[in-house]
Amino acid sequence: MDFSSKLLENAVYEMSQLPGIGKRTALRLVLHLLKQPGEQTERLSNALLHLRNDIKFCENCHNISDVALCEICANPKRDRSLVCVVEDIRDVMAIENTSQYRGLYHVLGGKISPMEGVGPQDLTIASLVEKTKKGEVKELIFALSSTMEGDTTNFYIYKQLKGLDVSTSTIARGIAVGDELEYADEVTLGRSILNRIPFEGSLKAN
Amino acid sequence: MDFSSKLLENAVYEMSQLPGIGKRTALRLVLHLLKQPGEQTERLSNALLHLRNDIKFCENCHNISDVALCEICANPKRDRSLVCVVEDIRDVMAIENTSQYRGLYHVLGGKISPMEGVGPQDLTIASLVEKTKKGEVKELIFALSSTMEGDTTNFYIYKQLKGLDVSTSTIARGIAVGDELEYADEVTLGRSILNRIPFEGSLKAN
Repeated sequence: MDFSSKLLENAVYEMSQLPGIGKRTALRLVLHLLKQPGEQTERLSNALLHLRNDIKFCENCHNISDVALCEICANPKRDRSLVCVVEDIRDVMAIENTSQYRGLYHVLGGKISPMEGVGPQDLTIASLVEKTKKGEVKELIFALSSTMEGDTTNFYIYKQLKGLDVSTSTIARGIAVGDELEYADEVTLGRSILNRIPFEGSLKAN
Repeated sequence: MDFSSKLLENAVYEMSQLPGIGKRTALRLVLHLLKQPGEQTERLSNALLHLRNDIKFCENCHNISDVALCEICANPKRDRSLVCVVEDIRDVMAIENTSQYRGLYHVLGGKISPMEGVGPQDLTIASLVEKTKKGEVKELIFALSSTMEGDTTNFYIYKQLKGLDVSTSTIARGIAVGDELEYADEVTLGRSILNRIPFEGSLKAN
């Protein structure tokens, strides 16, 4: 694209560095900001800068938090013997929305992915192992996405925990509630048959 | 969404004010910035602020420009008697890309749209009429999108020009080059038949 203004070109370029935002979308967004009052651009820029510069992570679970110990970790009603291992804050928000979980979390900050240059040392795995060694944690629930990267990460952590007195589990995979069997993919349907649960147990979940 | 951090919540909120960016996308973009080096967020914020605060518009055609008279208006090889009326800079860029146009532009900054609260006084229509009154412009080409708002705007400008010695035209609407007739919508196909051009004339265009 051939811009008539270096300022515009630069803003569009920086905007298009965001994932899923192409040059055309970036131009549309930037032109939108130009039509709005200047305060909107100022608020956006300041919000991004503040977040990036002043961001803190909970010292226990590594979730994004404005205080040293996040609300969940600081809550005395939470079950400290149960830790759910997730990739990032979005997973924490999703699980919290279900109101079904009363344990704590451990936010890894990603998955092991040689393709993207993410190794175990880039994640908070060492901190998770340390925490488990202290003995308070009785069960780790792996809740990473079931991709090759997710499975690799689960297995890596599992091996690190060898010899420690902690049980591990992964969240159940199966047909979503309300979904038709005929439209489910074979892997999911196959797993949901292999991992079937006693009918009486399934009644309790409702 | 229930965020664990006010800083994060604020950044996501401001990001989701952009058109087409929902809360979920905004969260994804903001989390991406958190994973990148801080300089990327700084560059983005600064580029947006610079653009918004230092933006200038060409005093002749009102296109976005870093100098008082934009490159196109300042080019002595351009035909100053021909002015193409467009909505915004994206249209200028699209027409310039064709390398088929050697006249000048006039950027309205939008279309008349009572629904969105955009009246004639919000656009650069008065400046276009003034420019035309000076007599240098011989032809105005309306190149707004053929929506109700575009047609209204064309007609409003047309009325303002009453009594002035200037001819007006609109860009041709028809079947796109390479498109199959059977897939064209009826309005476009109908118009392309009504506005057919002599076959010999069509040879010159290639």
